[in-house]
Amino acid sequence: MIFLFTDFGAGDIYVGQVKAVLLQHAPKVPVIDLLHDAPPFNVKAGAHLLAALAARQPKDSVTLAVVDPGVGGAREPVAVLADGRWFVGPDNGLISVAAARAAKSEVFSIGWKPASLAASFHGRDLFAPVAAMLAGGGRKAAKLKKAELTVSFGADDLGEIIYVDHFGNLITGMRAGAVPRDRGLVINGRAVRYARVYSEVKPGELFWYENSLGLVELAANSASAQQVLGFKPGNRLG
Amino acid sequence: MIFLFTDFGAGDIYVGQVKAVLLQHAPKVPVIDLLHDAPPFNVKAGAHLLAALAARQPKDSVTLAVVDPGVGGAREPVAVLADGRWFVGPDNGLISVAAARAAKSEVFSIGWKPASLAASFHGRDLFAPVAAMLAGGGRKAAKLKKAELTVSFGADDLGEIIYVDHFGNLITGMRAGAVPRDRGLVINGRAVRYARVYSEVKPGELFWYENSLGLVELAANSASAQQVLGFKPGNRLG
Amino acid sequence: MIFLFTDFGAGDIYVGQVKAVLLQHAPKVPVIDLLHDAPPFNVKAGAHLLAALAARQPKDSVTLAVVDPGVGGAREPVAVLADGRWFVGPDNGLISVAAARAAKSEVFSIGWKPASLAASFHGRDLFAPVAAMLAGGGRKAAKLKKAELTVSFGADDLGEIIYVDHFGNLITGMRAGAVPRDRGLVINGRAVRYARVYSEVKPGELFWYENSLGLVELAANSASAQQVLGFKPGNRLG
Repeated sequence: MIFLFTDFGAGDIYVGQVKAVLLQHAPKVPVIDLLHDAPPFNVKAGAHLLAALAARQPKDSVTLAVVDPGVGGAREPVAVLADGRWFVGPDNGLISVAAARAAKSEVFSIGWKPASLAASFHGRDLFAPVAAMLAGGGRKAAKLKKAELTVSFGADDLGEIIYVDHFGNLITGMRAGAVPRDRGLVINGRAVRYARVYSEVKPGELFWYENSLGLVELAANSASAQQVLGFKPGNRLG
Repeated sequence: MIFLFTDFGAGDIYVGQVKAVLLQHAPKVPVIDLLHDAPPFNVKAGAHLLAALAARQPKDSVTLAVVDPGVGGAREPVAVLADGRWFVGPDNGLISVAAARAAKSEVFSIGWKPASLAASFHGRDLFAPVAAMLAGGGRKAAKLKKAELTVSFGADDLGEIIYVDHFGNLITGMRAGAVPRDRGLVINGRAVRYARVYSEVKPGELFWYENSLGLVELAANSASAQQVLGFKPGNRLG
Repeated sequence: MIFLFTDFGAGDIYVGQVKAVLLQHAPKVPVIDLLHDAPPFNVKAGAHLLAALAARQPKDSVTLAVVDPGVGGAREPVAVLADGRWFVGPDNGLISVAAARAAKSEVFSIGWKPASLAASFHGRDLFAPVAAMLAGGGRKAAKLKKAELTVSFGADDLGEIIYVDHFGNLITGMRAGAVPRDRGLVINGRAVRYARVYSEVKPGELFWYENSLGLVELAANSASAQQVLGFKPGNRLG
């Protein structure tokens, strides 16, 4: 099973090209679009969202992860095996939070090079064939060598908005388990109370809850928390 | 064949999580995205759009249908077998129009419970596994029991805009067969004439026609009927 | 392998209906969404984008190509075999650039007619079944006859913006191989220099480069070239 996590845009011309490559290299492996609208240019937010999503993925899966403003520049490609899940992408920190939170993680440089490599689309020409090798039983061809991550954001939570969904819910990089529920969060000097679910607050009322990925999420009943607060990815809480 | 009809957002983080669950529970069943941008919070409009789309689906298909502002609250999950097609979703009226229009329909409560259920994402944790059971031959595991729908909008047409497509065409909840074509519809005091197809009217001209789902649709040749009329889902005709 | 290239909208109600038909007619053939947000009503821009994308497709693939403002009117359906790749769509020029650039291309009229044909959705009722026939080994059923294209835009480059991606990059219809790199392009009286890749220019700086399809693309480092230039599909360069 190959998961795609990118900022290529769900409706744009890039994802189909990646899938055509995957299908040619690993025709029997199902491919799932996890997200193609990761916040563009914001690698740190993407790293935290990817870590939360990846924690739910099956153990033998491969995730092609690309948010890569430096594509074609100096950063190297990297493969990570974290608690049995493979990740392939740029060594720019995107995979680092998932790696840092894993009980066991191994990092590899990628020796395989494509015959033709577009400077602006390593997702199609390099990461997709390597993801297919890892998912389809051709790991040897990828020429992996033990290495270290060059950029790492670490395992800690991130007190920022990392993603805004199309309902206007604001997902933070804070895992909800460690946040006390008896007192509210303070957001921009405004107290936001905890509720278990939308229907526990009044229409339009702002609250926070533990979302389906285990993260603190700011929401409003039948309304957009983003419009209420005016927040976007990268905004800090507190 | 499993169809997905939701308001999860085609480009958002939710659909991929649902598909990962479906793939793990029913790896050989193809999954088709019917719509993930159903009008949010508008269950009635969604129910009429779903009924029109579902009428074209193969007899042995399963449709996971989720527009569910009350998720995590009191409403129960439900499964409906309508003219040989299965539907799984919240018992909030969403499936009721398809059920009411079927020559034969049976309603079932769902006894199966997931080990872990996110309050805000029954689509992933409850409806997806059940849809996989119904599509993949594990109907017994779903523990279905004969029941009745709690909320029903009935079989009648709905004289409202139920969906606006990305061209700006305005789809109504009125089936076109019963609407006379020799006189125009009156929309907000404005006569809108019938035409068979776009090219029969002048560029920019407003008209109504029988769309590919058999519904009355307001359109404009090479232009957006939505911009011309300023309508959105929920607006009433007449 | 069937590729879909349309203006049906990636998040709209149309693509799922097409896929349901493909799955019923050719259940074993994988389907890839190449693009569903081709510039609406702009057949010429779509024809150039399709030609650039199609040049990368496998030889035995079938592309269902629909940008079809005249649907339901006088234009005929057509199938083209260009350098081993099949294309099915309206005979309105959309396939003509791919056909004109192929070393060998054959054009066919389509004799097969569906039992039921919605005037506004030939993509679902006519082109999808024919694409399935061509991809699934039922070519005879399509009743193809040698023909000529009625509308052709020819093989030449197009000095216009043909597509704007979600980053705001402006893709032109000019193949980059023939454009000298030592002097800049002049866009609206403004010199735009060549760079190999984003990281070679300053943040926000405009440049042109050879994109991953081999076309001249106007871009800006970590910014939107569209916002800088205010361009949209159909705007002419120079």
